[in-house]
Amino acid sequence: MKLKLLAIVGALMLVACQQSAKETAIIEQPENQGGFPFVLPDEKPNRQMSAAMERIYTDYAAPQPQNNELFSQFKYTEMKGFDYNDYDGTISRRDPSKVLLHNGKYYIWYTYRNTPTPPQGAKKCNDTIPSSDWDLADIWYATSTDGFNWEEQGVAVKRPEKPTVGWRSVTTTDILEWEGKFYLYYQGFMEASGKRGDDCPVAVSYADSPEGPWTPYNKIVIPNGAEGEWDQYSIHDPYPLVHDGKVYIYYKSDFGERPDLVRMQGLAIADNPLGPFKKHPLNPLITSGHETSLFPFKEGVAALVYKDGPEHNTIQYAKDWVNFEIASITELMPYAAAPYVPDAFTNTTDGRGITWGTAHFINATGDWSKFCSKLVRFDCDLSRDVHDPEMKEHRVKHKPDVYYRQGLSKAQKERIAKQNEALTKQ
Amino acid sequence: MKLKLLAIVGALMLVACQQSAKETAIIEQPENQGGFPFVLPDEKPNRQMSAAMERIYTDYAAPQPQNNELFSQFKYTEMKGFDYNDYDGTISRRDPSKVLLHNGKYYIWYTYRNTPTPPQGAKKCNDTIPSSDWDLADIWYATSTDGFNWEEQGVAVKRPEKPTVGWRSVTTTDILEWEGKFYLYYQGFMEASGKRGDDCPVAVSYADSPEGPWTPYNKIVIPNGAEGEWDQYSIHDPYPLVHDGKVYIYYKSDFGERPDLVRMQGLAIADNPLGPFKKHPLNPLITSGHETSLFPFKEGVAALVYKDGPEHNTIQYAKDWVNFEIASITELMPYAAAPYVPDAFTNTTDGRGITWGTAHFINATGDWSKFCSKLVRFDCDLSRDVHDPEMKEHRVKHKPDVYYRQGLSKAQKERIAKQNEALTKQ
Repeated sequence: MKLKLLAIVGALMLVACQQSAKETAIIEQPENQGGFPFVLPDEKPNRQMSAAMERIYTDYAAPQPQNNELFSQFKYTEMKGFDYNDYDGTISRRDPSKVLLHNGKYYIWYTYRNTPTPPQGAKKCNDTIPSSDWDLADIWYATSTDGFNWEEQGVAVKRPEKPTVGWRSVTTTDILEWEGKFYLYYQGFMEASGKRGDDCPVAVSYADSPEGPWTPYNKIVIPNGAEGEWDQYSIHDPYPLVHDGKVYIYYKSDFGERPDLVRMQGLAIADNPLGPFKKHPLNPLITSGHETSLFPFKEGVAALVYKDGPEHNTIQYAKDWVNFEIASITELMPYAAAPYVPDAFTNTTDGRGITWGTAHFINATGDWSKFCSKLVRFDCDLSRDVHDPEMKEHRVKHKPDVYYRQGLSKAQKERIAKQNEALTKQ
Repeated sequence: MKLKLLAIVGALMLVACQQSAKETAIIEQPENQGGFPFVLPDEKPNRQMSAAMERIYTDYAAPQPQNNELFSQFKYTEMKGFDYNDYDGTISRRDPSKVLLHNGKYYIWYTYRNTPTPPQGAKKCNDTIPSSDWDLADIWYATSTDGFNWEEQGVAVKRPEKPTVGWRSVTTTDILEWEGKFYLYYQGFMEASGKRGDDCPVAVSYADSPEGPWTPYNKIVIPNGAEGEWDQYSIHDPYPLVHDGKVYIYYKSDFGERPDLVRMQGLAIADNPLGPFKKHPLNPLITSGHETSLFPFKEGVAALVYKDGPEHNTIQYAKDWVNFEIASITELMPYAAAPYVPDAFTNTTDGRGITWGTAHFINATGDWSKFCSKLVRFDCDLSRDVHDPEMKEHRVKHKPDVYYRQGLSKAQKERIAKQNEALTKQ
């Protein structure tokens, strides 16, 4: 009897619990509570409030963005020191790694393409003509002492001979420092991107110094999923951090069928940099975004989530490194953001956040016949140690031309004219 | 005993319920569920999922933005037919009303300032020199048959003689149609904006036709709150809709002290357009945004929320017209958006949504010495009757110059150089 009662009460409470999350009934006028106070309380006041007002005290670190350490605007600066061959589409740099500080110098690695022509698509590509912007690429690196002026150092990891993993292209790398050694993880293409989709597993090279030389492991280190699984074709943007004494690699996969291609992010964990990596059973962990951009924050991990999906334009936080919640909503975020994360590899439980990094502009000139991408620096204040009020402005101010550039297409104008005619000729 | 058991179980369930909302423990590997499926299910799959994956099935109308009726991009088009005196700052148009369709013509009303000089601030203003862009303004109107080309018709509501409400300026109006009559609600200033803050209550005028003539009620129709309440100084952006057989007026108030000025939105309800209006006891109902922009949607009401606050850049929805939830996250939203809402006044319980409206660009030239604002048309697909895939693109594509315009300030460059020096000279 007691068990039966327990079951019934439990079921009722569960139903109530689910309902309270999604459906809030109109609350009758609270007695004697007066109007909401003129100065917004920092802490949740003891009064009946609307769902939205409840939320600013429960869902965010502070009720106003400027007091939320995980809210920031983003500022952009050209990175000097790179030649793009007059942006004719034959040289491209994109998908940078996190910034590594080593012996007083900043290092970044990135996808470098230098081909006789701009990308020609999967049907026209061959052994020297690239299909996509990241086809037939190698991994290059550059150094800087101020983060604005860079010196390109040349190749770090060259694509190997066929049929070794990455023979067609090695791209979209990221760096790990582990027990005094350095590991570059990257996408290892074994066919031109666009043949079926953008298919690849993850490969890795290692070195005793950020300067190299880099020894290729020459084996797949994070394999694609089984047939029918979300990551069966692609493991993109491997992004290593150290947590809980282990190597945590977040990654993206493209899945589903065009035009409803979906991009989400998962996690693979290993005790050692060369694996074996075990994929997290709750993958995908982030449902939106386009590339992986994470950093330790307090005891958890924060992620920049941009471009794709229902929760684009957010900064998210997972206290347990797995279950992400929206920490803030922002705009004009960097794409392929790869921050300088001082505590990326320190196994920290007190992550301090980030203030800058590099990212990329896709199709930098806007000319599709000369398609190339370029690196760009971004700055922000997602750091617990910096307090920059200019970064905490609620909004980006654009001039009218920025809006007008987002104009109606011919098809849209026709649709509107037709609907309009029906209404005004009634 | 049973009661005691009930109480204990209830308490335990409540704790569990609260925890599940905010803190999700790492879930042990689910047995035999395999990787997430390659094609994103439309309905929530029966498997253990991460918090973010759960959320896309519970918090949004569809797991992907393109299938969410309350997600849209926004497109912008110049409105023709308005003269701005070469943008010298002496003529300004801003804060348009909803678009009203009447006898085959579209009507909008808006704040119109025509003054000998641009705004000079509260200290330098006088009876003819304006303090702010919306000081010494009247309400004008314009008509159109296509929504792109407009004919300005002149004044609708002139500011009255001192000391009648609105004698200093009448601004930021919106339209109600109710039982064959028309009501313009507006901010009625009785001192120049900027003297203390931006202080005003709401006034109203009425007419038998959108063409006027307009009879001023000459009394405050929505008063400010009592001392110490959030809306004690300002009732901005009165925005009437008809719901539940009543007049629902959403409004904004500024509250708190600079620089932490807060903008939120509340609701006042009346049985008749001239009041009395009763403020909703759960106000504020929307915690973010800058102006009020709402429309009936299904049985509830949707709101465009932009510019200010933790939940800017969202579209929100309240099934009960009171408790708003985030329905989608978007970007480059129109400011002071005032849509064409065909069912604004029909007492609908099956709101169809919106596809276009007007908005404004503040300081249209960017020159602060010639400060004026201008009207702009926006288009979107937040309609259940239109399906425009171009409006459902996940993201706005900007060229690099749009990012570079958001550059670092001198103070920021100095901060960065200093921090950088400390790191690279170690």
